[in-house]
Amino acid sequence: MLKKADRIYFGGDYNPDQWDEATILEDMRLFEEAGINLLTLPVFSWAKLEPAEGEYHFEWLDRILDIIWSHGIRVCLATPTTAQPAWLSRKYPEVLPVDIEGRRRTHGMRVFFCVNSPKYRERAAAIAEEMARRYARHPALAVWHVSNEYGTYCYCPVCQDKFRGWLKKRYGSIEELNARWHTAFWGRTVYDFDEIMLPTELNDDYRFQPNVELDYLRFMTDSTAECFRNEADILKKYNPDIPVSTNISGFIKKLDQFEMLKHMDVAGWDNYPWPTDPPDLVAFKHDIMRGLKGGQSYMMTEQSPNQQNWQPYNKLKRPGEVRKISYQAIAHGADTCLFFQMRQSIAGQEKFHGAVISHAGHGSTRVFREVKRLGAELKKLGSDLIEGRISSRVGILFDWNNWWALELASGPSKDMDYLKTVSKYYRAFYEKNIPVDILSVDSDLDSYDLILAPELYMTKEGVAERITEFVRKGGTFAATVMSGLVDENDRCVFGEYPGKLKEVLGIWVEETDALRPEEFNYMLTDARAGLPASRYRCGFLCDIVHPRKAETMAVYESDFYRGVPCLTRNSFGKGTAWYIGTEPEDAFLSDFFGSVCSSLGIRPLYPAAAGVELTNRVSGQASVVFALNHNVSEAWVDFGSDQLTDYQSGKTFTGMVKLAPWDVLVLKKKERN
Amino acid sequence: MLKKADRIYFGGDYNPDQWDEATILEDMRLFEEAGINLLTLPVFSWAKLEPAEGEYHFEWLDRILDIIWSHGIRVCLATPTTAQPAWLSRKYPEVLPVDIEGRRRTHGMRVFFCVNSPKYRERAAAIAEEMARRYARHPALAVWHVSNEYGTYCYCPVCQDKFRGWLKKRYGSIEELNARWHTAFWGRTVYDFDEIMLPTELNDDYRFQPNVELDYLRFMTDSTAECFRNEADILKKYNPDIPVSTNISGFIKKLDQFEMLKHMDVAGWDNYPWPTDPPDLVAFKHDIMRGLKGGQSYMMTEQSPNQQNWQPYNKLKRPGEVRKISYQAIAHGADTCLFFQMRQSIAGQEKFHGAVISHAGHGSTRVFREVKRLGAELKKLGSDLIEGRISSRVGILFDWNNWWALELASGPSKDMDYLKTVSKYYRAFYEKNIPVDILSVDSDLDSYDLILAPELYMTKEGVAERITEFVRKGGTFAATVMSGLVDENDRCVFGEYPGKLKEVLGIWVEETDALRPEEFNYMLTDARAGLPASRYRCGFLCDIVHPRKAETMAVYESDFYRGVPCLTRNSFGKGTAWYIGTEPEDAFLSDFFGSVCSSLGIRPLYPAAAGVELTNRVSGQASVVFALNHNVSEAWVDFGSDQLTDYQSGKTFTGMVKLAPWDVLVLKKKERN
Amino acid sequence: MLKKADRIYFGGDYNPDQWDEATILEDMRLFEEAGINLLTLPVFSWAKLEPAEGEYHFEWLDRILDIIWSHGIRVCLATPTTAQPAWLSRKYPEVLPVDIEGRRRTHGMRVFFCVNSPKYRERAAAIAEEMARRYARHPALAVWHVSNEYGTYCYCPVCQDKFRGWLKKRYGSIEELNARWHTAFWGRTVYDFDEIMLPTELNDDYRFQPNVELDYLRFMTDSTAECFRNEADILKKYNPDIPVSTNISGFIKKLDQFEMLKHMDVAGWDNYPWPTDPPDLVAFKHDIMRGLKGGQSYMMTEQSPNQQNWQPYNKLKRPGEVRKISYQAIAHGADTCLFFQMRQSIAGQEKFHGAVISHAGHGSTRVFREVKRLGAELKKLGSDLIEGRISSRVGILFDWNNWWALELASGPSKDMDYLKTVSKYYRAFYEKNIPVDILSVDSDLDSYDLILAPELYMTKEGVAERITEFVRKGGTFAATVMSGLVDENDRCVFGEYPGKLKEVLGIWVEETDALRPEEFNYMLTDARAGLPASRYRCGFLCDIVHPRKAETMAVYESDFYRGVPCLTRNSFGKGTAWYIGTEPEDAFLSDFFGSVCSSLGIRPLYPAAAGVELTNRVSGQASVVFALNHNVSEAWVDFGSDQLTDYQSGKTFTGMVKLAPWDVLVLKKKERN
Repeated sequence: MLKKADRIYFGGDYNPDQWDEATILEDMRLFEEAGINLLTLPVFSWAKLEPAEGEYHFEWLDRILDIIWSHGIRVCLATPTTAQPAWLSRKYPEVLPVDIEGRRRTHGMRVFFCVNSPKYRERAAAIAEEMARRYARHPALAVWHVSNEYGTYCYCPVCQDKFRGWLKKRYGSIEELNARWHTAFWGRTVYDFDEIMLPTELNDDYRFQPNVELDYLRFMTDSTAECFRNEADILKKYNPDIPVSTNISGFIKKLDQFEMLKHMDVAGWDNYPWPTDPPDLVAFKHDIMRGLKGGQSYMMTEQSPNQQNWQPYNKLKRPGEVRKISYQAIAHGADTCLFFQMRQSIAGQEKFHGAVISHAGHGSTRVFREVKRLGAELKKLGSDLIEGRISSRVGILFDWNNWWALELASGPSKDMDYLKTVSKYYRAFYEKNIPVDILSVDSDLDSYDLILAPELYMTKEGVAERITEFVRKGGTFAATVMSGLVDENDRCVFGEYPGKLKEVLGIWVEETDALRPEEFNYMLTDARAGLPASRYRCGFLCDIVHPRKAETMAVYESDFYRGVPCLTRNSFGKGTAWYIGTEPEDAFLSDFFGSVCSSLGIRPLYPAAAGVELTNRVSGQASVVFALNHNVSEAWVDFGSDQLTDYQSGKTFTGMVKLAPWDVLVLKKKERN
Repeated sequence: MLKKADRIYFGGDYNPDQWDEATILEDMRLFEEAGINLLTLPVFSWAKLEPAEGEYHFEWLDRILDIIWSHGIRVCLATPTTAQPAWLSRKYPEVLPVDIEGRRRTHGMRVFFCVNSPKYRERAAAIAEEMARRYARHPALAVWHVSNEYGTYCYCPVCQDKFRGWLKKRYGSIEELNARWHTAFWGRTVYDFDEIMLPTELNDDYRFQPNVELDYLRFMTDSTAECFRNEADILKKYNPDIPVSTNISGFIKKLDQFEMLKHMDVAGWDNYPWPTDPPDLVAFKHDIMRGLKGGQSYMMTEQSPNQQNWQPYNKLKRPGEVRKISYQAIAHGADTCLFFQMRQSIAGQEKFHGAVISHAGHGSTRVFREVKRLGAELKKLGSDLIEGRISSRVGILFDWNNWWALELASGPSKDMDYLKTVSKYYRAFYEKNIPVDILSVDSDLDSYDLILAPELYMTKEGVAERITEFVRKGGTFAATVMSGLVDENDRCVFGEYPGKLKEVLGIWVEETDALRPEEFNYMLTDARAGLPASRYRCGFLCDIVHPRKAETMAVYESDFYRGVPCLTRNSFGKGTAWYIGTEPEDAFLSDFFGSVCSSLGIRPLYPAAAGVELTNRVSGQASVVFALNHNVSEAWVDFGSDQLTDYQSGKTFTGMVKLAPWDVLVLKKKERN
Repeated sequence: MLKKADRIYFGGDYNPDQWDEATILEDMRLFEEAGINLLTLPVFSWAKLEPAEGEYHFEWLDRILDIIWSHGIRVCLATPTTAQPAWLSRKYPEVLPVDIEGRRRTHGMRVFFCVNSPKYRERAAAIAEEMARRYARHPALAVWHVSNEYGTYCYCPVCQDKFRGWLKKRYGSIEELNARWHTAFWGRTVYDFDEIMLPTELNDDYRFQPNVELDYLRFMTDSTAECFRNEADILKKYNPDIPVSTNISGFIKKLDQFEMLKHMDVAGWDNYPWPTDPPDLVAFKHDIMRGLKGGQSYMMTEQSPNQQNWQPYNKLKRPGEVRKISYQAIAHGADTCLFFQMRQSIAGQEKFHGAVISHAGHGSTRVFREVKRLGAELKKLGSDLIEGRISSRVGILFDWNNWWALELASGPSKDMDYLKTVSKYYRAFYEKNIPVDILSVDSDLDSYDLILAPELYMTKEGVAERITEFVRKGGTFAATVMSGLVDENDRCVFGEYPGKLKEVLGIWVEETDALRPEEFNYMLTDARAGLPASRYRCGFLCDIVHPRKAETMAVYESDFYRGVPCLTRNSFGKGTAWYIGTEPEDAFLSDFFGSVCSSLGIRPLYPAAAGVELTNRVSGQASVVFALNHNVSEAWVDFGSDQLTDYQSGKTFTGMVKLAPWDVLVLKKKERN
């Protein structure tokens, strides 16, 4: 996809409009020294490139691109449409967004426009076309980057009208909309699409009418995709060979990225882990990114080479930390390692955000030395990894609509957190170094042996049917509390829970108790479950499960539902379907999925000490194994009889290998004959 | 009052507009099975009944009422005016409320209209009249239910104008208003009623000008009463025999319910205790409801048959819990036991709120079985209880104006909580099973032996005089810290505290110290106070009390006011007046009021174990005793020589009786000859 | 400055418009009894004095002034412009402020006008002129008090326009503004001053664009100074001999008071310590006030004679507390001791705020007795203290622009608190009774031996140069973490930290780590530092310091920067410059500055027990020593061979003297021959 790449793209965001040419030339020297081969620009230069409507001044950018290319560096060329010029906001205030309180914003922030504004789209398309015409065949051009971190919701009159039109198209008639939104509740029946109001703080529908809000979020995803396409289609027209992407903000919930990615050639995302994020959470997010286009490698578009500025306490990245998180991204499917920012801004909101070149302006800094070492290492990897894929027998379903609806629901617990819950299930595999694919609910399940669907609250058309078919044909499936409750309009099933999943799971769920954070129950497991312990803590939610055809594999220890099943197994067709009717502690998930994987013959990549992360990416050129030691002490991995050659030292490893604290090994696996 | 009732009304909110007829008929079958005899509807059906202005379609409702009545079930017929149709909001946006920030809301939520809007009132009256004309003589009609959970404040131009008019009427002249509002403070003098602005977030008067806000809250109560009357008067016109009511939301502070109830035939309220609410708090609220119309029985209009959806952690109601809280309501004066909701909605904000018939749609659920058992039990009570009254010798004054003003006051402590404070005093009697009446400050005090006025900060015209007269004639009175400070315009007394109560209490209060939540002092009691202990903890506020004629019965243990009185007793006329100048711990209140009651010959209904709640309702037909065991273990009550017959088993009890955990006995007391 | 004062002015805010004449006459009697000699009025009487536009009624005030003066009391005459009449807001709504959310406020609060409103200024000037013409030569007039507690920010169209004009004047051209604001960041380049928007919640610039917000705050200071001058210039015109001032609110951050004071004759501020404020924090604020006009004595314009009403828990002032805090103010440079309020208001927001005469209305209260005692004491001091100065060899730089910019910065830690940090450094001297002057960054440093610049993040033009010169000539300077990072437009230095202070400090700071509140490191000190301990705790921020010419005097104990310097000393010219690269615990600051002072021969006023505060004010008439015992137990001070005479008892002390708990001695020091 990143066709011109002969090795991992290494570099990041560069804002030459902030510096004079002497500084830029010094930067180039340092970039070469550090092995930089890609720069992203000019993200924030709309005002510079188009100082007045239709007046373009690209000479500056021509010169910059020539300087960059003369140093053998490629560019990720950004349309600068994330920050429209002040003159545009002043001349056409309708390009500014209206917020959820109904207030028209004034010019200021970035990503501060209405994605549906015709005038914004007209001017954005115009400058994108100028750039495409000028640079689409520039030899330095590696990839197009449209705008930046989309995700601003708007509630302006244009959005109001388009939302009505969108609903009309989706539902056809007002009767159908009334039925799908179940407007009879609280007397919300409408007789005309023009009676429909956006869900805002002015009517509180954004939190009290989940079905309206759900459609609004879908509409915003579609509108944003359209806004992206508004530029992307033009860029493609001038050179269809250059991939087009954008960067997803770290907070990924706002837009349905499976939907967004249908319109992009490659996923790009900004990796900003918090100092407190455990490595498995970061790995999980990387796997989501790899999943967005069905396992295709993606761009890590941003990460900080040192501390951030926007956290409450911005800790320095420790020595070796940037190297480790960079390799982690690549280990999970990234084909780029890009930093925000290459040179530190001297003013504004992010002036204390880490950069490859700090305010000091020279290379005699710890951060620059670490970046330079990484650059040298990445060179040695060459192109082996590019487009390398990860092979998994386990899939976890992940769905943005489900995420939104689940967390919009009022009851049974306020602590519903879909991302956290899915990551909890993911962790049970991560810690065993069993690779997992994150799948959309539309994915083909045939190639997997085990499918998990944590809190699959919403069963869209065909999903339960596909899961049922998967099990019937021999697959193993695991569902959890909060499953199968609603349809894609957030209407509850008319009948017993878990709705369309009832048959494959062989159970009926009568009630769900919500526990306070300090409250717990225990699961008492049946010997047949084959688990090392017979008692595990659980909490959060507790289903009252009635097995119909399923066998009970664990029951609650206490409360009025003592003895009621909380873990069931149903043999269905050639396969097996498990139901976990509560939120178990991590130890249970580890033991339980360990046992399930074991019975399915799914094994870790290699045996390794706790805290060692292993992945295996296989491209047309090579099979590459990554071993990351997240411990602050030495740890081991046992490669058995495999022979793996270290890209850095050239040494070949086999059997038991020691990893230094926080060390990473990238190894080329010798193919067995 | 609920004239047609031949037994406790048992049923609740039903929304047939959400279902097809097959479902409705199945519901009826289940209702009959469960002993349901009242359904409330069609609360949210305005849009269905009037799809366009003046176009009414009542055929659907005719059919529903016929079906219901054909199953022998009566209806609480609701005017559907709580949720106006979207077309109405669109055509006449002025019906929508303007919020405290000055923002006109958009169509969405329920109870989302301006109570003063002429257009809203016109359309509400019109549909109420349609309903009255059609159904006022329908045999199923038991009671009218106007709208739903009133309490939306509005700050629109119409309200602004009406508020000025209301003030003009209240004060007559601008000079009088200036005097009563004491506008000289902070230079707020006005020269024209049109200079007066509503207290909003735009001028911060809602929190910084207590006298303006206080009048605004009175104005809102009057406006809401008018809005209620707008419909109620029409309903009455068509059949004066049908009682008219509405349901008070659980959060009762917003409107002065003593004032509201002047316009209603019967009180109705929605009982949603939190899992953490102790039984005495629930009992206290029931007693408030009974007090609203001077002891007359009231309607419990809503409670959940299982978990709620809107709490942070929605715990399932435990087996037996619905039965216990239902009987508690009846024990305190409710003549109905109604649920929200009869069938669970499949969408919207409340889709996970408990219902008699859950999404599962059948009767094979724990909840349905418990409801059915209760229905069968209530049938056995027959009409014995209807209109039954509770007889009390103890009264507690409770006043909405006082509540508002006390909590609006800036200083001496931010933790002023009137409801909590009064409930603390109430508890001292509740735990002894000494019945208490909650009285408005206008109530006749003659029939009581003991009157409490916790934190009676505001002494309205005549109130202090009536209390003084009560004591002079032999009554016992107890006042507390924060008493007698202001008049009904929140103007402080010009002179010593506690103002008009100074003489009857025989003291002067010089200063009031505010303690932080973690700080305490101790009350050292005098032997003459006759209390079991000589030292009790106190805190929150500490008055510096100077006795004039009163005797000191306790003093502070520490701080610079060590030795200063904090409990005084004044003999006045034939009676006694106590002053408690701080907030004592519960043990003090229990011991102290135990001693006071004992000296007045006020005794518990029966001796009983802790956690056993007893009440006695006496109607023209019977004297009924309720015994509720709130313990999770067995407990006793000692009926002595009384003979009481259990409505359920027919057994007659006397002497010591054991109550199973969480059990309730309802017993007919044999009249002594 | 307070020319007519023959002794400390003692009195406070009095609002006779709230009372009838009988009450006023009784108040006068009590004031005379209490030794009151100054009343501030009529702060809130605009509506009374000008009931309609241009219609003035001053007869009432004439009479009041005559009554007051007939009791020998002077007045601090206030223009009543803090609370415009309702008719003014109604007739000219443009006088009302627009808030940061863009909402035009409605009439209500005080200080509730736009300082830039032409109409407000016109009407304020008109009434000021009326007052000046009438009272400028009144014998009772001691000082003019313009308006009250300025500090309301406004975002109205008038302010928007004026802000653009202010920027144009400041920067000359749009190119210069773009450069100074570094608008290239985030694409904020502007091409016309009319494109600039105020920083509000509508564009989030108030928190995300520090350079815009910083200029807005400067603009608001200038606008408020102009608004003050609008009245002050008129008052001066009628009698140039009467000093003109206003009162600064306790929350002093909003306006740059060094700038404001350029336009006033004398500083005035409202001293409202919280019960939890340690005495050193109060002393620090007093010293700021004394610093505002270069050491000239100031007016303490308000303090409460008892509890406040607006704190969460309003504790009574303990017996002796008012006396102690009153003397503390005078000890630090106040020439007045004024209370808010003389008589307690009976209504409104502050009705429970303490007053000299409480609601009780008589003098038989603890508070009145304490005030009266203090009045009698102050009389004995006579005029000895007036204009007395404090002599200091230590100066601490304090800068409002630095304060704003430092706390606006995003990163490295959210807990940046300039006032708290400076007060921490101040405490190290306070606890030793070493006098300190608080200096603006423009101050002349020549007369000091030691200059501290805690967190001098912003080095304005010339400041670093002046500090460098100060050290070169022999001064001792101490800088801390977060120093020298930005210029006056909040642009970071282009090059190594700490920018312009790098040479004098002889170091380079590479990075700054932010620790969470629960995290710590330790400083291991070198023996040459001469400190009693070798290990001190530090935290918050940790610089990675590279000494260039400086010597390392302490290093970090742990983390990856173990062994890295955190305290350095640089010999530069004839002086010494210290750098403290982290936030040390108080014990370090105490030991370290103890050692530094000792080496410079800077000694405590007198040896004294911990918790005893000493100051020395010297006027043309006398050298007065204050000794305050903040302990709840007895404590000592050792006057050595000095002879000091107690103003109250007339006794002369020498050598070791005991102070009773919370006692204060005011002593006249005998000049040595």
